[in-house]
Amino acid sequence: MLNPNSSISVTQRMQSCCATISLPAGYHVDFRTLAEGPPVIECQRDVERVVLPVCDYFHANPADAFVIGCFSDPGLYLAREELGVPVIGIAEAAVLAAVGLGARFGILAIKQGSIGRHTRMVRQLGYADRMAADRPLDLGVAELLDEDLSIARIIDVGRRMRDEDGADVLILGCATMGAYRPRLQAELGIPVVDPAQAAVMQALTLLTLNYAGIA
Amino acid sequence: MLNPNSSISVTQRMQSCCATISLPAGYHVDFRTLAEGPPVIECQRDVERVVLPVCDYFHANPADAFVIGCFSDPGLYLAREELGVPVIGIAEAAVLAAVGLGARFGILAIKQGSIGRHTRMVRQLGYADRMAADRPLDLGVAELLDEDLSIARIIDVGRRMRDEDGADVLILGCATMGAYRPRLQAELGIPVVDPAQAAVMQALTLLTLNYAGIA
Amino acid sequence: MLNPNSSISVTQRMQSCCATISLPAGYHVDFRTLAEGPPVIECQRDVERVVLPVCDYFHANPADAFVIGCFSDPGLYLAREELGVPVIGIAEAAVLAAVGLGARFGILAIKQGSIGRHTRMVRQLGYADRMAADRPLDLGVAELLDEDLSIARIIDVGRRMRDEDGADVLILGCATMGAYRPRLQAELGIPVVDPAQAAVMQALTLLTLNYAGIA
Amino acid sequence: MLNPNSSISVTQRMQSCCATISLPAGYHVDFRTLAEGPPVIECQRDVERVVLPVCDYFHANPADAFVIGCFSDPGLYLAREELGVPVIGIAEAAVLAAVGLGARFGILAIKQGSIGRHTRMVRQLGYADRMAADRPLDLGVAELLDEDLSIARIIDVGRRMRDEDGADVLILGCATMGAYRPRLQAELGIPVVDPAQAAVMQALTLLTLNYAGIA
Amino acid sequence: MLNPNSSISVTQRMQSCCATISLPAGYHVDFRTLAEGPPVIECQRDVERVVLPVCDYFHANPADAFVIGCFSDPGLYLAREELGVPVIGIAEAAVLAAVGLGARFGILAIKQGSIGRHTRMVRQLGYADRMAADRPLDLGVAELLDEDLSIARIIDVGRRMRDEDGADVLILGCATMGAYRPRLQAELGIPVVDPAQAAVMQALTLLTLNYAGIA
Amino acid sequence: MLNPNSSISVTQRMQSCCATISLPAGYHVDFRTLAEGPPVIECQRDVERVVLPVCDYFHANPADAFVIGCFSDPGLYLAREELGVPVIGIAEAAVLAAVGLGARFGILAIKQGSIGRHTRMVRQLGYADRMAADRPLDLGVAELLDEDLSIARIIDVGRRMRDEDGADVLILGCATMGAYRPRLQAELGIPVVDPAQAAVMQALTLLTLNYAGIA
Repeated sequence: MLNPNSSISVTQRMQSCCATISLPAGYHVDFRTLAEGPPVIECQRDVERVVLPVCDYFHANPADAFVIGCFSDPGLYLAREELGVPVIGIAEAAVLAAVGLGARFGILAIKQGSIGRHTRMVRQLGYADRMAADRPLDLGVAELLDEDLSIARIIDVGRRMRDEDGADVLILGCATMGAYRPRLQAELGIPVVDPAQAAVMQALTLLTLNYAGIA
Repeated sequence: MLNPNSSISVTQRMQSCCATISLPAGYHVDFRTLAEGPPVIECQRDVERVVLPVCDYFHANPADAFVIGCFSDPGLYLAREELGVPVIGIAEAAVLAAVGLGARFGILAIKQGSIGRHTRMVRQLGYADRMAADRPLDLGVAELLDEDLSIARIIDVGRRMRDEDGADVLILGCATMGAYRPRLQAELGIPVVDPAQAAVMQALTLLTLNYAGIA
Repeated sequence: MLNPNSSISVTQRMQSCCATISLPAGYHVDFRTLAEGPPVIECQRDVERVVLPVCDYFHANPADAFVIGCFSDPGLYLAREELGVPVIGIAEAAVLAAVGLGARFGILAIKQGSIGRHTRMVRQLGYADRMAADRPLDLGVAELLDEDLSIARIIDVGRRMRDEDGADVLILGCATMGAYRPRLQAELGIPVVDPAQAAVMQALTLLTLNYAGIA
Repeated sequence: MLNPNSSISVTQRMQSCCATISLPAGYHVDFRTLAEGPPVIECQRDVERVVLPVCDYFHANPADAFVIGCFSDPGLYLAREELGVPVIGIAEAAVLAAVGLGARFGILAIKQGSIGRHTRMVRQLGYADRMAADRPLDLGVAELLDEDLSIARIIDVGRRMRDEDGADVLILGCATMGAYRPRLQAELGIPVVDPAQAAVMQALTLLTLNYAGIA
Repeated sequence: MLNPNSSISVTQRMQSCCATISLPAGYHVDFRTLAEGPPVIECQRDVERVVLPVCDYFHANPADAFVIGCFSDPGLYLAREELGVPVIGIAEAAVLAAVGLGARFGILAIKQGSIGRHTRMVRQLGYADRMAADRPLDLGVAELLDEDLSIARIIDVGRRMRDEDGADVLILGCATMGAYRPRLQAELGIPVVDPAQAAVMQALTLLTLNYAGIA
Repeated sequence: MLNPNSSISVTQRMQSCCATISLPAGYHVDFRTLAEGPPVIECQRDVERVVLPVCDYFHANPADAFVIGCFSDPGLYLAREELGVPVIGIAEAAVLAAVGLGARFGILAIKQGSIGRHTRMVRQLGYADRMAADRPLDLGVAELLDEDLSIARIIDVGRRMRDEDGADVLILGCATMGAYRPRLQAELGIPVVDPAQAAVMQALTLLTLNYAGIA
């Protein structure tokens, strides 16, 4: 799993939230950071500039499956075309998990500016009619990384999507919030999908079942 | 995983095709046969008469998650309402896997008579527009259980769904054909989903990620 | 028309609300009660346990067409497969009537617990995008049977579905409320469908026009 | 029921095919011919020029419900806006009947030139995804009115829509073919909807159940 | 461009709002008024009675393309069938423009009574799922023609469609409001489509690119 | 209009096919070639590598509107986010034109390898149900540039999409085939959209009507 931004703290967040997953003997997830990535991926330019580096990193670091650890899935289609193994985007994995868990999902976006990207991704997957809402948290990075500072806002936005927008499953629209999943689920009583965790389970499924034409 | 028909040979088929799945330490799938079930489940009456027995079997045999091992998913909604743990139908699991693997899926049905049931299930899941076709194999049981006798027919029907109906992923519409998946995938070059295998991976995912409100 | 619960008062309610329908000479509806049914059908187990008895009752009591008089349509697909005549579920009949009367319908459910069943039925019929809402009345049986005690609540829930959810036609989600239809229509000014009445007219249509392949 | 073309033979055809319908005591269908209509309604101008005359005829000849007896439903929305009683178009009635009888319907059009009109009507009703096909018979009037001359062609076009287009219910796209319905159903084994018959049963249903806001 | 009502002031409004469009050398829009039309087109009868006159006017006044300058598009399908050149309805042109400018559009209707007509038109075009709302302004003619009297109401209704209904593009549901487009866009920050302007640009595109089968 | 590949002959093709468009006084299209682009854009890597250069070229060469002259629309979302003026992708413009010209469109792709990209683009725009087919021409560059060598193949593929797939409008899936549009339209009798021409008319419309929020 490659974090395409250069913030090691973000990679560590993904790693610790995926650490709750027991893998079968012989399976292992390596968490890497793209040193040349920007500190955060917030705008379309941030996304576009890591597309080639992400794919080239995969070429240089062979694995049985690759996960792109950013909710914009930068380089997903390029990597799928060039690498001979399964390539998973955490946003796509989260949406595929969510549509199996409920009728309509809501996405907790970090910023307003990501919502257009999310919408295009969801439409491209053919699930526009399953998206109840996509609402921004509008939290700064410092707040976002501190559960005590951010959890009230996260629960509030999630509750609005459940009660006003009709979402019966939520997606954390960023790879850094997985640690808050237990509290959020406990408060709201509906499934909450962490994209990095969903991607690990999808990778495990693809490697286990060896579907033709996937890689 | 409970096979709701009474044919132990069918249970063994499911077990052997799921034996290719490595599970994490501490996870185990028990394969059981419903002694009071009919020898095969072919018509709507066969389905309806095992609904209560399947659910009652689960009540009497506690587990962390249950799988209903029949492509008609008998008792799925009853078991979900009554048991406090995840309950998975192999048909539903197969469809959820298929829509993540391709744009439009085809189902290889055993008999013409099951197609109405499949169609209702797919529509209920909201994936009518993703179903390319559902074609019957029209094979007798003896032929179905003998790979040499059945594989040509299975490949032929699958190829028609790929080439004429536009399916880019196939679902085996019965729990007894998993052993033929490798040859079918090799011939056609598109993903083929075995419903029992898909259900095991879905159960593992639900137990691992512990989504709220699922059980 | 068979009421699959054992409450004769419910059968009488259906009968009296259908008594407003003039039938052509030679047509007659017989209202029967399934003695072995539960007093009310409220949960999935209630539904499942009457499936075989309903169908067997039809086998034992021949008619030119059968109506299953419960908004969960228990045994509908079994009866259609086994009996050589039209079989109508009142919920299905109500939805088919509603989509001909307006753009989006709302369902007045008795209890929250039925809504999942309704949703699956509506999706199976292919009308998910025509369902504006499904809201529970949360009335006790005693209140439900007393127009003076229940009508205010019924009108209130119906008005919310009309004004907030955009429903332009309503379905009474139970066979016991037909008597309140005139007052509800008069208050709200939009069509209100009683499922038992809709089923009688659908049966009459099918018997009159004798469509091939229906029975 | 008003035939908006001036051909009395067409009115008689509608009348004789609806004569198979038993109506309750007190109900009666009057079949009328619009003297000022064109001999046939084949092009858009034919449709448009009868819109005002149809509605004005209804104003001058009061009834409890009106049926527009032409598969282009000329004047339907005008009559609904102006008359205080139910107004039914036979094309709309046929489509509403068909979607209750099968998953996807085919329309047997008289001429290629009507298909655009049918398509607009079906889309307006919201059933574009339920229309399997609309194929022209391309029969002259003399042939159309002679069962022996036309039935082979009608069966052939119907069979193509069933077998190639996936229609499981057919609509006769003109009010003059109802007499051929029995043979067509017998040959193809799927429901065939005559629009005049469907409209009579819809009128009976609306008058019997007295839905608010319909008239 | 033919204004099918007889109010010259309305024709002048259309003309002045289209005067902002620079056309290539050799292109020219002639604005005409249908003398025999009603002063305003408000009800279905107003629409139907101008259908034949509009088309006959076009026959009598040849042009390279025709625009029907009324948001009910009266005579559109008749004119397309009979004239050998492109015929454009301003409502259809506005919807086609809107779906290219945003995800979901709202229509500012003059009166409640037009909304049914708009809805049928949008469904016929296949864009029902792209219509966020259609809300009436309920302004009298005098107010509507006076920007100072009407602009506050127009902005208020537009804002509600943007903020409550989720519209990200608005359509002016009448040919008389184009002059208010700049202020409305400036207030709301989302695209506002004037139907007459949209129709002129569509006509120019069709004449420039000369698509086969369009006229 | 920027051709993101470095082949001047391709730029000249776009320019000559757009030369048939008369623009209003004061409007002018400048055709440019991205010198650092690959000679052709055939695979996902070709697309990704020009994303940043295309956008940076626009920053360096100001205009009132920009067109990306490649049917993969590379850099479209980045340029829209960064530039304060309308940015048009020729593929998006072609699809928006096509859905206004017919019910279902077919795309003439150069190579099989582009079809996945087209499908993602069409789904992202929300028009998956309007795409009848996307078929590859499988022509070499030399053949493609020679009308006599390629026109028979182009007509044959277009005819199959019209007759077998039900397309009633075609899109040329590359900016180099516009010169063949007249012959293709004449042969097939349905509209054929050249993406570069469609983009020029869309740019002219956006600049003329000055929609808020578009740039």
